[in-house]
Amino acid sequence: MQRTSRRVVLAAPPTGVPTRETFRIEQVALPTLSDNQVLTRTLYCSADPGTRSRLSAGASYAPPLKVGETIDGFCVGEVLESANPRFAVGDLVALGGGWAEHVVFPGRGYMQKIPHRRLPLSYWIGVLGVPGMTAWFGLKRVAQLKAGERVLVTSAAGPVGATAGQIAKAMGAARVVGVAGGAEKCAWVAQAGFDAAVDYKADPNLTAALLAASPEGYDVLFDNVGNAMIDGVIPLLRPGGRIVVSGQVADYNTPPGQRPGLTNTAYFIASRLRMEGLVVFDDLHGFSAAQEELGALIESGAVKVREERFTGLEAMPDAFIGLFTGAAFGRRIIQVGAEP
Amino acid sequence: MQRTSRRVVLAAPPTGVPTRETFRIEQVALPTLSDNQVLTRTLYCSADPGTRSRLSAGASYAPPLKVGETIDGFCVGEVLESANPRFAVGDLVALGGGWAEHVVFPGRGYMQKIPHRRLPLSYWIGVLGVPGMTAWFGLKRVAQLKAGERVLVTSAAGPVGATAGQIAKAMGAARVVGVAGGAEKCAWVAQAGFDAAVDYKADPNLTAALLAASPEGYDVLFDNVGNAMIDGVIPLLRPGGRIVVSGQVADYNTPPGQRPGLTNTAYFIASRLRMEGLVVFDDLHGFSAAQEELGALIESGAVKVREERFTGLEAMPDAFIGLFTGAAFGRRIIQVGAEP
Repeated sequence: MQRTSRRVVLAAPPTGVPTRETFRIEQVALPTLSDNQVLTRTLYCSADPGTRSRLSAGASYAPPLKVGETIDGFCVGEVLESANPRFAVGDLVALGGGWAEHVVFPGRGYMQKIPHRRLPLSYWIGVLGVPGMTAWFGLKRVAQLKAGERVLVTSAAGPVGATAGQIAKAMGAARVVGVAGGAEKCAWVAQAGFDAAVDYKADPNLTAALLAASPEGYDVLFDNVGNAMIDGVIPLLRPGGRIVVSGQVADYNTPPGQRPGLTNTAYFIASRLRMEGLVVFDDLHGFSAAQEELGALIESGAVKVREERFTGLEAMPDAFIGLFTGAAFGRRIIQVGAEP
Repeated sequence: MQRTSRRVVLAAPPTGVPTRETFRIEQVALPTLSDNQVLTRTLYCSADPGTRSRLSAGASYAPPLKVGETIDGFCVGEVLESANPRFAVGDLVALGGGWAEHVVFPGRGYMQKIPHRRLPLSYWIGVLGVPGMTAWFGLKRVAQLKAGERVLVTSAAGPVGATAGQIAKAMGAARVVGVAGGAEKCAWVAQAGFDAAVDYKADPNLTAALLAASPEGYDVLFDNVGNAMIDGVIPLLRPGGRIVVSGQVADYNTPPGQRPGLTNTAYFIASRLRMEGLVVFDDLHGFSAAQEELGALIESGAVKVREERFTGLEAMPDAFIGLFTGAAFGRRIIQVGAEP
């Protein structure tokens, strides 16, 4: 086998929306494995909005990347060599290895064996990976959604949002409304079984449109967008309402201190609201059980999945940049190597 | 007995900080009681910052008062007449009767019999009333404070804040820091047993001073002030930190939309923060048990109480206005009638 590999590294920390100049492709030599390390060949990478928070300094769950470091991201790989008793050559795995043709897993951190091939392998870094698990634990652990409640999901055509809305329906929500941009995305939201889709590009008064879509208001806001969206929805939340801070894609490219602020905070007391953020790795111990339940919902057709496919490491920067320009539509998966 | 009584009513809804012109004293006739009604003679009234939210339109847990309606507030009363089997003539009660020399309790709503006279009667609308219960349930139900955690309390010289800090110490908090304005208030905060008091008037960089007062940060922010304070503290919260939205005294007089915004929301994901508001009447079923426990802490000296006393219904507007000018210091109690 070859002992060199290519990877995408940080070339220059961006100040706003990342550009092609943010990234650089490098050739690197692959090391000999130490104890507990595993070498994987990447089959699929994903473009994750959360990666943005590591490209420049700011509040994040992890420190910012240095110039020259591999860009963060999830991938599906095949184990080529293993010095780790938990993984064998030929195993298919999902891991947080970054944008690279090969990954050396250090022995600790997130790497999960994919238990079966009944579903597309890419799902393990999509609907059964971080986006899907974020939807699952955001609704179950954070929002503690109850049957009969009303749910609003923002960025509802995206992989977290579309999954969240479908899980909410499966949990017995009385009404699930999704916000998305443009007729095509709204059509997909409706097709995914949401009770209503609101096009934020078509409705100049978004708050009024959201109220019309659920005249009794909302018990849960599952938000993937950020402050301006949350602030507009707060007045529509019912007593005891919960805001799940799942993502802040509209705010990631805004420097700290310049983000739009939450001003409708009087409702936190008046309506007894609760707002809570999550990083899904806190729920790692529950992934297997959740993946089994959610996998069954996918196999039964209750949860539909939409992916956008790209090919080759060279496609990664554009696939990622498109997450912040409204171009993304479903989970963005980049095929980097052939399936075994 | 007299069949007329005086009360303070809304004369003109204020646009900013209330003034004397906001209020008017009226003489009213007392009605004959209908079934389940109770007539009380007021001994003590309290000046409550939460009353501000009912003086003009905006997000509140209750609709705004109309011009001519009695100003909302809590009082201690003696039952003069009763058409309600739960209350007898001579009972001492705490109720939400408003700023009035006599109150006709309608038969439903908040009216609680005061079970003993071992503590000053005014405590039942102070440390054992809404402010104290807000502190209690804010820490126990909302923050779910655990022993060993670090707590920051704002407006710490006030009746909610001072009680919250002392309850936190009694619950085994490792460090309890209070924010107050001026040396005299900070001296009282220290005397109340807080580990440190930070004077926001003396420290131009409040965030740095708060970090110095607890170098490991804070697990719980018990906030009585509002958005600007919360936004400054968010970066100091530890992973899993909780913000109790107890009061927003700095924001009550700002029209909706003009409040300072919360901008440091990236930390909600990065630090897995939770922010939740409370209206203590949701915890009414737990008042008796909490009052018994907290009463014991007061009798033992573990919780100290500070009151400011005023006399006569005429003193109510100034006592209330002072809550928003930084003049208040401890619970503001207005004696309206003599104790039996």
